[in-house]
Amino acid sequence: MFESILKNVQQKSPLVHCITNYVTVNDVANAILACGASPIMADDINEVEDITSICNATYINIGTLNERTIESMVKAGKKANSLNHPVVLDPVGTGASKFRTDTTFRLLDEIKFSVIRGNISEIKTIYTGSGKTKGVDADVSDKVTEETLDDAILFAKDMSRKFGSVIVITGAIDIVADENKAYLIRNGHPVMSKITGTGCMLTGMIAAFVAANMEDITKAVAAAVTVMGLSGELGYLRMKENNVGTSSLRTYLIDEISKMDAYTLKGGMKVEVK
Amino acid sequence: MFESILKNVQQKSPLVHCITNYVTVNDVANAILACGASPIMADDINEVEDITSICNATYINIGTLNERTIESMVKAGKKANSLNHPVVLDPVGTGASKFRTDTTFRLLDEIKFSVIRGNISEIKTIYTGSGKTKGVDADVSDKVTEETLDDAILFAKDMSRKFGSVIVITGAIDIVADENKAYLIRNGHPVMSKITGTGCMLTGMIAAFVAANMEDITKAVAAAVTVMGLSGELGYLRMKENNVGTSSLRTYLIDEISKMDAYTLKGGMKVEVK
Amino acid sequence: MFESILKNVQQKSPLVHCITNYVTVNDVANAILACGASPIMADDINEVEDITSICNATYINIGTLNERTIESMVKAGKKANSLNHPVVLDPVGTGASKFRTDTTFRLLDEIKFSVIRGNISEIKTIYTGSGKTKGVDADVSDKVTEETLDDAILFAKDMSRKFGSVIVITGAIDIVADENKAYLIRNGHPVMSKITGTGCMLTGMIAAFVAANMEDITKAVAAAVTVMGLSGELGYLRMKENNVGTSSLRTYLIDEISKMDAYTLKGGMKVEVK
Repeated sequence: MFESILKNVQQKSPLVHCITNYVTVNDVANAILACGASPIMADDINEVEDITSICNATYINIGTLNERTIESMVKAGKKANSLNHPVVLDPVGTGASKFRTDTTFRLLDEIKFSVIRGNISEIKTIYTGSGKTKGVDADVSDKVTEETLDDAILFAKDMSRKFGSVIVITGAIDIVADENKAYLIRNGHPVMSKITGTGCMLTGMIAAFVAANMEDITKAVAAAVTVMGLSGELGYLRMKENNVGTSSLRTYLIDEISKMDAYTLKGGMKVEVK
Repeated sequence: MFESILKNVQQKSPLVHCITNYVTVNDVANAILACGASPIMADDINEVEDITSICNATYINIGTLNERTIESMVKAGKKANSLNHPVVLDPVGTGASKFRTDTTFRLLDEIKFSVIRGNISEIKTIYTGSGKTKGVDADVSDKVTEETLDDAILFAKDMSRKFGSVIVITGAIDIVADENKAYLIRNGHPVMSKITGTGCMLTGMIAAFVAANMEDITKAVAAAVTVMGLSGELGYLRMKENNVGTSSLRTYLIDEISKMDAYTLKGGMKVEVK
Repeated sequence: MFESILKNVQQKSPLVHCITNYVTVNDVANAILACGASPIMADDINEVEDITSICNATYINIGTLNERTIESMVKAGKKANSLNHPVVLDPVGTGASKFRTDTTFRLLDEIKFSVIRGNISEIKTIYTGSGKTKGVDADVSDKVTEETLDDAILFAKDMSRKFGSVIVITGAIDIVADENKAYLIRNGHPVMSKITGTGCMLTGMIAAFVAANMEDITKAVAAAVTVMGLSGELGYLRMKENNVGTSSLRTYLIDEISKMDAYTLKGGMKVEVK
């Protein structure tokens, strides 16, 4: 299902311009390299257009937002739009402060995003134009479970229609939706929330996967989400086997991304289309 | 002794607002997650009050100080004070430049800190209002040893009285003191100084431990110091056993924090109260 | 050949002032610690002169350039020059944007660099005063191979004469050249390009090696390049043996730097002088 998508990333090795937070930036760079693409981080307003122009995709992440880089994000996003490069948004912690929420809406207003990825709380903040998140984690009362899944799918499809972007809601069950179709991905493991950066890395990988597979963006996004979830699962197994802890899990997770191949992906993925 | 303190961190999972340096920020986030709490990094002046308000503690670290974030630190600290949240200071490298020293005194002037943690050189810089540190490492001539320990304890208690903060001096022997009582912690291993960030991670964990144990702040701080030291020891044993190097030690250290439980803590701690 | 150079780093433990990018800064700090030296990161214009003054070398890396830190780089570099401290430049991605290229030339104009290290694309950009790089990776058409090696050596020596700096071109074969002599280093492994930061770490180590071996700068640089390459090779062997991935390689690489000793270095180095 996703084998050729992964192969395209590894063979085309797209270059991804990342304007992202300084907390997880190293993991983002290494995850993008691990999946076969190349990252370049550049956030000064004097160079973002040049950098975006030589890249194949632009990744904007608001995890440690500041006034200086917001302008760079807008400029890079507009340039990418003019070049028809995919632009991917990770609205980390939107809803946690007025500044993040306002910035998110400014970005959505000025840039056309191919993909928006967040937890349910962040995505709902965007959808409703308001909301409150508990820090950077999803609001517990809003978890996507088997019971609430059908509603969540409808919501994601509707939001995709409204925003013109593929919508990704990550959680216990990951949802990747455009207006017509939703991929449900049941890979991953809860312990992944015990390390920082899994969301940021995933969104970076999404940018790479989309850049290498422009003919079916939604499927490319679903493939990236599956690779991340499956790598987390495999990393968790290795962590348990070795009786180690969460920092090893971080290492194993990126290891598994770098080792992912068609057989592992085909054998391990838990994906449903609705 | 510290078992219920650790349990409180894991069960209450406090949210810690971190304004910290970009060198070790990822390790700080992962260490805070590993001990059972949650971090959120935010340093723009437009959002620090909002973020501090949804958190349970505020952690300020001057490791890579710049003019922009100093104002954010002051604003976040004042807000946290007004909410009676604990505020913890890591004066990394204070004394190494006039800018760091001046900023440290400004922060101390404008913010009430629950805890201040540094090496002996940094702490003495603060105490004396001047001083010189060799980069970010403790001045060798000022090491706390068994011989100088009694003086160091008196000094720490006196400083706690003067500043109204729990004082933590980390080194070969760690001292955690309020005006009446000092915990001496002989966990840890010298090789921990061969990786960056152990101090920064520890101070972040202190913020989490205090937030979850407001009824006995000094004891909570001592517990955090002990967990870090013991995790470093266990990490060192694993490093030696596997015949690896310092980067593995960094991984093992955070692993051990994430695996720490009441039994390990009780069995491994080397703590004396004076 | 390089044994005493490595010993000098470990025994003198020079302090390196780093103004570097936020992507790989943690790896740079840990690599500098691993080879036996000490890093201090400081980029605010108000403190760079103080910090440079207490250090033994200054390392400038333009990986995530911004307007604020460029002024700090210039000020730190000039101060280091006035103190006769070695100053080392890593022109990451120069040529990828006008801003990076212009900044590189400004730095070269205002600061005297002891060493400049880049891939062939970055180095050629500097030499020709223009050029185009594919992101932060070397331009494929310009790779240094056994066939093009003699030309590359002549080029490096000529550039060293022109710039008055030791020139380091890293790639499949690493070249370290002054105007009279070139070291060719055939250590390393291609998989090292699958992790971010190997170049940044190496340049940081070069600063440390030079600071501890001022009597033969070119040889000190060659030793640092050899230690990095050999550590990568050994890390790769361990990665293969354990059947893991690229994130483990990153850990193993720094592990091997921290474990490097005279015997391993002597036995493993593949160095030729021309």
